[in-house]
Amino acid sequence: MVFFIIGLGLGDESDITLKGLQAIKSCEYIYLEAYTSILGVQKDKLEEFYGKKIIEADRETCEEAIDEILAQAKINEDKNAAFLVVGDPFCATTHMDLFLRAVKKGLKVEIVHNASIINAVGCSGMQVYRFGEVVSLPFFTETWKPFSFYDKIEQNIKANLHTLLLLDIKVKERSVENLLKGKKVYEPPRFMEIKTAVEQIIETEKTLGKKAIGPKTKAVGLGRIGMKDQLIVAGCLEDFLEISMGPPLHSFVICAPELHIIEEEMFEFYRWKKKDSGVKI
Amino acid sequence: MVFFIIGLGLGDESDITLKGLQAIKSCEYIYLEAYTSILGVQKDKLEEFYGKKIIEADRETCEEAIDEILAQAKINEDKNAAFLVVGDPFCATTHMDLFLRAVKKGLKVEIVHNASIINAVGCSGMQVYRFGEVVSLPFFTETWKPFSFYDKIEQNIKANLHTLLLLDIKVKERSVENLLKGKKVYEPPRFMEIKTAVEQIIETEKTLGKKAIGPKTKAVGLGRIGMKDQLIVAGCLEDFLEISMGPPLHSFVICAPELHIIEEEMFEFYRWKKKDSGVKI
Repeated sequence: MVFFIIGLGLGDESDITLKGLQAIKSCEYIYLEAYTSILGVQKDKLEEFYGKKIIEADRETCEEAIDEILAQAKINEDKNAAFLVVGDPFCATTHMDLFLRAVKKGLKVEIVHNASIINAVGCSGMQVYRFGEVVSLPFFTETWKPFSFYDKIEQNIKANLHTLLLLDIKVKERSVENLLKGKKVYEPPRFMEIKTAVEQIIETEKTLGKKAIGPKTKAVGLGRIGMKDQLIVAGCLEDFLEISMGPPLHSFVICAPELHIIEEEMFEFYRWKKKDSGVKI
Repeated sequence: MVFFIIGLGLGDESDITLKGLQAIKSCEYIYLEAYTSILGVQKDKLEEFYGKKIIEADRETCEEAIDEILAQAKINEDKNAAFLVVGDPFCATTHMDLFLRAVKKGLKVEIVHNASIINAVGCSGMQVYRFGEVVSLPFFTETWKPFSFYDKIEQNIKANLHTLLLLDIKVKERSVENLLKGKKVYEPPRFMEIKTAVEQIIETEKTLGKKAIGPKTKAVGLGRIGMKDQLIVAGCLEDFLEISMGPPLHSFVICAPELHIIEEEMFEFYRWKKKDSGVKI
């Protein structure tokens, strides 16, 4: 019995690797992790494409799903199982935890790698070698505004490095009220847009009285990378208050203060011109 | 006419995505970039697998190849062309340059993403979010010992971040003598092993009188990631003078001073025990 953790890449059902598809075909139980990222296609499309039933594992049921997989794996030793992950298997802590739990139970685990935003960010025109620490930007609320993300961007800028900002995703979350009442009523999914990210950055700069970023800092907006309608737009930070990046997912690159020649050329190629909605490739 | 730049991922012929394979099937001209990285299979295996002829583009002919692709693309407007790249299309500056030249000539360019060591490094157990700037380590020679790589690792360590070291690859290179004589005689390919990397790091520390790394610094050795016989071994820097990592390609992770709980667990899972050759998964 093999327990596969398979990266689906970015985009749609055709972004799986042949190795990944072959593995899925050999599986009896297939779980889809659906809360750290989303693919451009729905579960039923994937089911049709694979010719297999898929069980969706959201944040709540993910841990249970893991135990179920592990239990099933022990019972049906000749039946393979797979856990499907948008992007690459090891690009989220949850999946590393899943891996460890499985190997500790003595399961044979195989990883099938794929693209994730961590390396596909090269399409921004900024070289993957020149990125500093990745920064996650959570939704601010009235009462919770964690400004700590700012220090990391500042540190990258000081070191003349680019920053990849991963924007918050809220899928199948419950309001505090419903949580307290124990009600399984879910809020509609929310995906942070680049515009919101920029507003939060500006708010953070104002509150902290810092100026590491500023309205004229170069940045690259990434919308739906890997999908047919992906959008890559370069501009100054303040431009992104106006640019409409379209549906989710969005990611955002804050550029290093100095660009290499080829990065500069790529930036010009993607540069936003007012009245455009962006550059399509 | 579409000009595809297609990532082959890491490993073998089955690591291409369905999208990538479909694109190749539509192409008349297919080039394989074969000097910034290598796949676990040879060109003829790929040709058989795709059912297509492949032209190998080494460092010398790569630029010519690009011009040829662009010229062909103009002449045969209904015939697609592809440029195949190990890993992800944008993980080397050369490929970004290729992209720019193509779009500037008015070609329709499509990118097919895939895994590269930049994101697959997550399999080391170190979280991809906690990596600082990527460091390339060139082969030292008697007369050329560029120590500048060390500063970057030092900076990452100070910021409590991991470092991914990409080890030098020399494919189809000519000796200075043969270059001067204009002789097209090539040196045998060379791939830096982790042992050599560690020796160079130690030499650099001694020469510069620095102690940012040291023999007890935690590190993870990666051999042939994505291939069937991949090897992941965790240990202290000095352990890697003894550990045999096997055939190329090797990559190396220098860990941040502090590991998160799950990173610590992964490190223990992969930890080298004397007399082992490493841990296989």
